[in-house]
Amino acid sequence: STNLTDPRPFNLMFRTTIGAVSSDDDPTALAYLRPETAQGIFINFKNVLDTSRRKLPFGIAQIGKAFRNEVTPGNFIFRTREFEQMEIEYFCRPEDAPRIHQEWLDSYDQWIQGLGISSENLKHYEQTKEELAHYSERTVDILYRFFPEREDEAKQWDELMGIANRTDYDLRVHSKKPEDAEGKRINPDSTEDLSYFDTATNERFYPYIIEPSTGVNRTLLAVMMDAYSERTNEKGETRVILKLKPEMAPIKVAVLPLAKNKPEIVEMARRLKKELQPSMRAVYDDTGGIGKLYARQDEIGTPFCVTVDHESLEDGAVTVRDRDTWNQERVSVDKLKAFLCERL
Amino acid sequence: STNLTDPRPFNLMFRTTIGAVSSDDDPTALAYLRPETAQGIFINFKNVLDTSRRKLPFGIAQIGKAFRNEVTPGNFIFRTREFEQMEIEYFCRPEDAPRIHQEWLDSYDQWIQGLGISSENLKHYEQTKEELAHYSERTVDILYRFFPEREDEAKQWDELMGIANRTDYDLRVHSKKPEDAEGKRINPDSTEDLSYFDTATNERFYPYIIEPSTGVNRTLLAVMMDAYSERTNEKGETRVILKLKPEMAPIKVAVLPLAKNKPEIVEMARRLKKELQPSMRAVYDDTGGIGKLYARQDEIGTPFCVTVDHESLEDGAVTVRDRDTWNQERVSVDKLKAFLCERL
Repeated sequence: STNLTDPRPFNLMFRTTIGAVSSDDDPTALAYLRPETAQGIFINFKNVLDTSRRKLPFGIAQIGKAFRNEVTPGNFIFRTREFEQMEIEYFCRPEDAPRIHQEWLDSYDQWIQGLGISSENLKHYEQTKEELAHYSERTVDILYRFFPEREDEAKQWDELMGIANRTDYDLRVHSKKPEDAEGKRINPDSTEDLSYFDTATNERFYPYIIEPSTGVNRTLLAVMMDAYSERTNEKGETRVILKLKPEMAPIKVAVLPLAKNKPEIVEMARRLKKELQPSMRAVYDDTGGIGKLYARQDEIGTPFCVTVDHESLEDGAVTVRDRDTWNQERVSVDKLKAFLCERL
Repeated sequence: STNLTDPRPFNLMFRTTIGAVSSDDDPTALAYLRPETAQGIFINFKNVLDTSRRKLPFGIAQIGKAFRNEVTPGNFIFRTREFEQMEIEYFCRPEDAPRIHQEWLDSYDQWIQGLGISSENLKHYEQTKEELAHYSERTVDILYRFFPEREDEAKQWDELMGIANRTDYDLRVHSKKPEDAEGKRINPDSTEDLSYFDTATNERFYPYIIEPSTGVNRTLLAVMMDAYSERTNEKGETRVILKLKPEMAPIKVAVLPLAKNKPEIVEMARRLKKELQPSMRAVYDDTGGIGKLYARQDEIGTPFCVTVDHESLEDGAVTVRDRDTWNQERVSVDKLKAFLCERL
């Protein structure tokens, strides 16, 4: 059909030119924004090895921006063209790679659940031989139930992170030495030898690499989704409660005066906030009635609200309200910090 | 002369195109990597104001990558095309701006000196009326002696950071309302009104902005330069000592066995390292003689070395060596953590 353009490749990376006076079509000025952090780590492998004097197994971690010209960006922050990535490249002896791969899988399971994500919304997906990237011996994706609204249970899941056994592929092809079956150098541009010399066994070889690769944005989205819940109050209103683990909550405690027109109450609340601040992130808020203030803190995931009322001026105690149970407990001011620290 | 090309502008920013199928010459796909973090903060001003319910004065801070096609990149990490920037945009009433500007200057002086940079290598430069950016009422640069080797004292200094009073320029031009003297909208593309309503005075106005803008890379370079020192040992060898403030040192303590062929000494050193690790970043190293091990730690700025020797097995004490004085002190193992914590 004449309605079709000539076929051309997708721009999967972002192309630019380096140099204040470079032309757009100057091939020597051509550069691409990095689509992953991994390759930079491989390129620096020898440098890190020489300066840190590590022995196998050891890892190099990096966190930072990666850029991809996604074909289908969207789904809130699930797939964006600019995202934060964190990767570990863990270098080991080839024969240790399968065991270490499994250890990293177990560690990441623990870590993800430690962020507060329920195991019900997590599962592993073992990539089939046909799906594996050409460099990979085994890749396991950790999936999260990103789309719980989908009817087909199989379509509810998508990748949270991947943990690959990349074999010795990367260090090998970034090295100047390796030759293919016909004796031709695999990578004629490389000037470095990225092999490793094991002084204990007197062997020189290319380490295998276990690579846990995580998108920070996706992890954040999963934490937020898992924490999101709704609850109906006694007036029949639906309230949003973000059940973040206390470790993950940006604000740990809100100190609220029951009456903002009573200076003694306001003063005591402000003082309490100031006293708690060095030990935990605390806020003071008096811009609404107590119900509204509680609702705001529930919605942003603050685990505890401390309310100063008229009685507090008499008995030196305050009401501590729990975000998840809405239970209230009277706590003496001099025991407040210890009470909260224990629960955070 | 026919040897000259037609004049054309410098590419001061990095240009790219967005979209997997965009053409290089598609104007709707055109995008630039951000050259500073500031403008993103102004664009989000109303959003932050509406969600965080702050009253003036308050600030929004951002840290992240910025990209500039520098005409003269180089001088180690002093000027790079990709760098880490941190900016605060501090919003205030116009009449408070001069005072707050000075407060931020004083705070940053304290902060920079708190990183361990000597006041001798710092000075302020007040930009003249001719040098001021069109949006600025006052800008003060904090200069560092980046080039101490230059004979001309005036040429030793370059900018570490700048603190500008940007007036209401940015919020005004990013707003849809403002018109010029002829009644024409300044920014016809804008759809937001970024003015602020002060409920206490019933006034609507554009806040003034004080902007401390810092390059993380430059600050790091200044910290490293200021910490760099040399010292000649008793053998006449020149040793490099990085006199980092203990807070800035990446490793706080190195635990070293005096003899690596004596299992009890090695075991005790490894145990001590493990015990110290939760309280301070500690390393264990046995890959050299004690002189070489000390020299390595001096060079990377480790404030303390702890040496386990034959006597340690008898008396339960270790030798603590100070990086800056090379003084050695015998400390009982059960008091070691407290001894170090006090000095770190």
